[in-house]
Amino acid sequence: MDIIEQVVSGDVRTVARILRDIDDEIPSAMDVLRELYPHTGKSYVVGFTGSPGVGKSALVDQIATNYRKAAKTVGILAVDPTSPFTGGAILGDRIRMQRHFLDPGVFIRSLATRGHFGGLSRSTNDMVNVLDAAGKDVILIETVGVGQDEVEIVNSAHTTVLVTIPGMGDEIQAIKAGIMEIGNIFVVNKADREGSRKTVRELMNMIELGARRHNGGEWEPQIVETEAIKGRGIEELYEAIEKHRAYLLATHTEKWREILQKRARMQFLVVLKDQAFRTILERLEGRGDSLDEMVQKIVDKESDPYTIVQQIIDKELK
Amino acid sequence: MDIIEQVVSGDVRTVARILRDIDDEIPSAMDVLRELYPHTGKSYVVGFTGSPGVGKSALVDQIATNYRKAAKTVGILAVDPTSPFTGGAILGDRIRMQRHFLDPGVFIRSLATRGHFGGLSRSTNDMVNVLDAAGKDVILIETVGVGQDEVEIVNSAHTTVLVTIPGMGDEIQAIKAGIMEIGNIFVVNKADREGSRKTVRELMNMIELGARRHNGGEWEPQIVETEAIKGRGIEELYEAIEKHRAYLLATHTEKWREILQKRARMQFLVVLKDQAFRTILERLEGRGDSLDEMVQKIVDKESDPYTIVQQIIDKELK
Repeated sequence: MDIIEQVVSGDVRTVARILRDIDDEIPSAMDVLRELYPHTGKSYVVGFTGSPGVGKSALVDQIATNYRKAAKTVGILAVDPTSPFTGGAILGDRIRMQRHFLDPGVFIRSLATRGHFGGLSRSTNDMVNVLDAAGKDVILIETVGVGQDEVEIVNSAHTTVLVTIPGMGDEIQAIKAGIMEIGNIFVVNKADREGSRKTVRELMNMIELGARRHNGGEWEPQIVETEAIKGRGIEELYEAIEKHRAYLLATHTEKWREILQKRARMQFLVVLKDQAFRTILERLEGRGDSLDEMVQKIVDKESDPYTIVQQIIDKELK
Repeated sequence: MDIIEQVVSGDVRTVARILRDIDDEIPSAMDVLRELYPHTGKSYVVGFTGSPGVGKSALVDQIATNYRKAAKTVGILAVDPTSPFTGGAILGDRIRMQRHFLDPGVFIRSLATRGHFGGLSRSTNDMVNVLDAAGKDVILIETVGVGQDEVEIVNSAHTTVLVTIPGMGDEIQAIKAGIMEIGNIFVVNKADREGSRKTVRELMNMIELGARRHNGGEWEPQIVETEAIKGRGIEELYEAIEKHRAYLLATHTEKWREILQKRARMQFLVVLKDQAFRTILERLEGRGDSLDEMVQKIVDKESDPYTIVQQIIDKELK
C-alpha cells in the first residue's frame, strides 16, 4: 500500500508523519498533498476562535465528545500556544484531554505558532486536507485571537464559532470591529460568571446591527451560553453547529457554493504566496546568494529592502 | 520640494498620503519607500502587545504624553481592531486620545486588520519606515494578540512591552508558550484589580525560568504594575523603556547589532514574500489568466491548489 492509500485508509502513523512533514516544511509534502486532494471535501470543518483564557479547548473537547457519541470520527487541530492540546495550559486540562488520546476515532495535532514565517495558515490548511483525506468526519480547529492568520484559518472552516466570556467588553468590540462577519455562532463561555446576560445582550445588539447581514440574511447567528468545564450548554452548541451545517448543506444553495469557493480561493492564495516565497528562497540559496549578506547591506545602508527585493524579483521572475 | 523632501521635512499631509498609499497597496509606494530608506534608522520603535481589553491604547496614550513632555516627536501605529485610535473602543477612550490629535508633534495612524491578505506586517513595517524618515523620534506600535503577524510586527521593534492584566492565568501561559522571548518589559495593567501581585509573581517566575536567557543574559526583563487610566506606574514604565533603550544603545554592543540585523532581516523577508506574491498576481492578471477560473477548477476537483500553484510557479519563475 502506498502512502496515499495509507492516508486514505486512515492509517494513524502515516497521517502523523505527513503532518510532521508539513510542519517541518519538507518539500515532498507538496506532492503528497497534491495526490491526496482528490480524496478531500468530505470533512466538515468547524473553527473555534477567541482570546487566550476563554476556554476554547474545553469547548472543543466537549464538542469532540458529542461527535464521538454520534459515531463520527474527529480531527482536532490546535493553533494556539495556550491550548492544552499544545501543552500550554494547566495540568488538569491536559489530563482531561487525554480521554481523546486513547480514542482511535480522534486525531489530535497541535501546530507551533512560532517558526512558521507567516506560513501558519498554509500549514493549517494543508493539515485540514490531510485529515479530510484520512476520512475524519469532522475537523475542529482551535485558534487564538483576531490576527490575519486567524482570519485566514477561520475562513477555511465551514462553520465558525467565536468564543468569549462575560465581562470582556473590549472583546466584543474586537469581534465587532474585526471578525464579526465571520462568526456563525457566538459562545459566551464561563456563563456562570457575573455579566453573562449582559454579554449575550451585547452580542444580540451586534447581530441586529450587522452580523445577520454578513451571514447572507438567511442565517441568524446563534448565541449560546456555556460552562464547558461542567458540560452546560454543550448540547445546545452542538445543535447550533449541526443546524448551521444543515442550513449550508440542505439545498446546495448559492450559499454553499460561495463557501466552497471562498475556501478554495483562500487555500489557493495561501499556498501560492507561501510556495512562491519558499521557491525563491531555495533558488537564492541554490545560486549561492547569501541572505546574510543582503541583510548586512540593509543594516549598513548600502542598500534597502525594497531595492534588494526588486532585484531578486527581476532576477527570479520571468 | 519633491515628495521625498516633503516627507523628510515632516510634512503631515504628504506622510498621511503615503501611508494611505501603503494601506491601499499602490505599487508606486514601493518607489517612495526605496528613496526614503536612506533617511530611516533614527527613530526608536517600541511595540506594545497584548489581548483585547488589557488597556494597551491607554498605555500608549500615556507613554506618548511622557515623550512629548521630553520634547520628543511621536508616531503611533495602531494595528488593533479594538484600539480607540482605530475607532474600536468606547467613546470615552476616543475622546481621551484627542489631546494628541491636536498636537502636531504626534502622528497617529491605524491599520485595518482586514483586507490585507497576510500583508499586515509588511504594511506596518513600511509605515514605520515612513514615520522614521519623517523624523519621529519615537514610534509606538500597538498590536493585539499572539499570532504570527504580531510576532513579525513586534520583531521590528527595538523594545517590546507585553501587556497583561491581573487574573489572566492563561494569558501568562500564552506569553510563556508563544512570545516570552520577545518581551523586554512586562506590564500588569489594571493593577488595582485583585490578583495583581500574584500575576507579578507568576511573571517573575517565568522570567527566572527563561525570559532572562532569551534577553541575552544581560537585560533583566522589567515588570511594571500600572493603572493606565489613572496614570499610575506610567513614569516607571517610561523609565523602563528608556532603560532598555539605554542598555541597547550604550555600547553599540553585539546586542544592538543583533537587533538591527533581526529588524533588517524581518523587513526584508516580509517585503520579499509580499512583493513576490503581488507581482505574480499582477502578471497572471496581465496575461488574462483568471483567478476565478482557477478557483472554480479547484472547487470542481478538476485540479487542486497544489498543482495549480506549481504550474504558476513553473510558468512565472525562471
